[in-house]
Amino acid sequence: MNEQYLPEASNKKPVKPRTVQEKEAVMNRLKRIEGQVRGIQKMVEDDRYCVDVLIQISAINKALDKVGHSLLERHTHHCVASAIKNGNGEEAIDELMKVIQQFSK
Amino acid sequence: MNEQYLPEASNKKPVKPRTVQEKEAVMNRLKRIEGQVRGIQKMVEDDRYCVDVLIQISAINKALDKVGHSLLERHTHHCVASAIKNGNGEEAIDELMKVIQQFSK
Amino acid sequence: MNEQYLPEASNKKPVKPRTVQEKEAVMNRLKRIEGQVRGIQKMVEDDRYCVDVLIQISAINKALDKVGHSLLERHTHHCVASAIKNGNGEEAIDELMKVIQQFSK
Amino acid sequence: MNEQYLPEASNKKPVKPRTVQEKEAVMNRLKRIEGQVRGIQKMVEDDRYCVDVLIQISAINKALDKVGHSLLERHTHHCVASAIKNGNGEEAIDELMKVIQQFSK
Repeated sequence: MNEQYLPEASNKKPVKPRTVQEKEAVMNRLKRIEGQVRGIQKMVEDDRYCVDVLIQISAINKALDKVGHSLLERHTHHCVASAIKNGNGEEAIDELMKVIQQFSK
Repeated sequence: MNEQYLPEASNKKPVKPRTVQEKEAVMNRLKRIEGQVRGIQKMVEDDRYCVDVLIQISAINKALDKVGHSLLERHTHHCVASAIKNGNGEEAIDELMKVIQQFSK
Repeated sequence: MNEQYLPEASNKKPVKPRTVQEKEAVMNRLKRIEGQVRGIQKMVEDDRYCVDVLIQISAINKALDKVGHSLLERHTHHCVASAIKNGNGEEAIDELMKVIQQFSK
Repeated sequence: MNEQYLPEASNKKPVKPRTVQEKEAVMNRLKRIEGQVRGIQKMVEDDRYCVDVLIQISAINKALDKVGHSLLERHTHHCVASAIKNGNGEEAIDELMKVIQQFSK
């Protein structure tokens, strides 16, 4: 069902698979963010004050940025570093720069 | 259950209650965002490529910004404008500026 | 000479002219920012370390955001509030929302 | 004179010195940004409309982001890639992540 939201599948995988612990840490954060999104749905339904909803949206953005940054960090330490060592650094760095630019917009 | 994520309750309400249509429009966007958050949970579980997950996180941030902007717009047109007409503009504008600053961080 | 960088002239003016003190406060900040921009020019000429230059660019961005926020605050307190009181609020708020959106991109 | 704005000197240098052409390209952008900053000083002195000044500040921010991104790109292709190849990748990547985080704030 959620598949409709997934970006087009790339066939790539992280060079080093995420460990159970890593997955759990990211999942916990994402579950919390999902709860926060449901929280603001309830706020809107209850006709809560606009500024209170806005503060909450800003908190979700920051939480997403944190997850994003930790994924970016892992990606650079593993996938990008590995590509550089294997002589495929240029492509990996270009891809990295592109996603960083996307985040800063 | 989601209550734990709600910011401290302010007693304020939008000066003009959200109409059923307005609520529906915001709720649809938030439901979609909730689906996107679940989508990236599945991506992490499936050990999908880091950059694909990052692109999706960036899309959620943009979707949240859009919801935030539309709430901000409504808030300014109704709550802030009304406060200004009633001679309580200073406080309402200070509050508005603070929430805008929070978003830009 | 700098005129080439100015956006197309709008005929509008702040409803309440900036006082000498207000102009001075903004000008001091802008002079400091100009100095910072010249500072990074020197850093580039001296082939200084990339990350050091980047940190400085980030500092200039933050300084510009601060000036921007203070101008936005004054604009809302004076121009927007005045337009709302005079029954021209809609247009002033739309313009405000547009410039806020531009900043958040 | 501008030295007061320089961050504390790090002894590091780009692993591959900037070429004359690279320096020129960055300097041209920075000279243009300096002109834009002087442009908004003139706008403030002339008591130009707040929103016009704000649009111009937003343009400078975007121009700085572009310079920053191109420096970041070069830094990653040369300094970070070289550190990774020489077995000092961890430190270089941590530094990179930190400066990216600083930019996103």
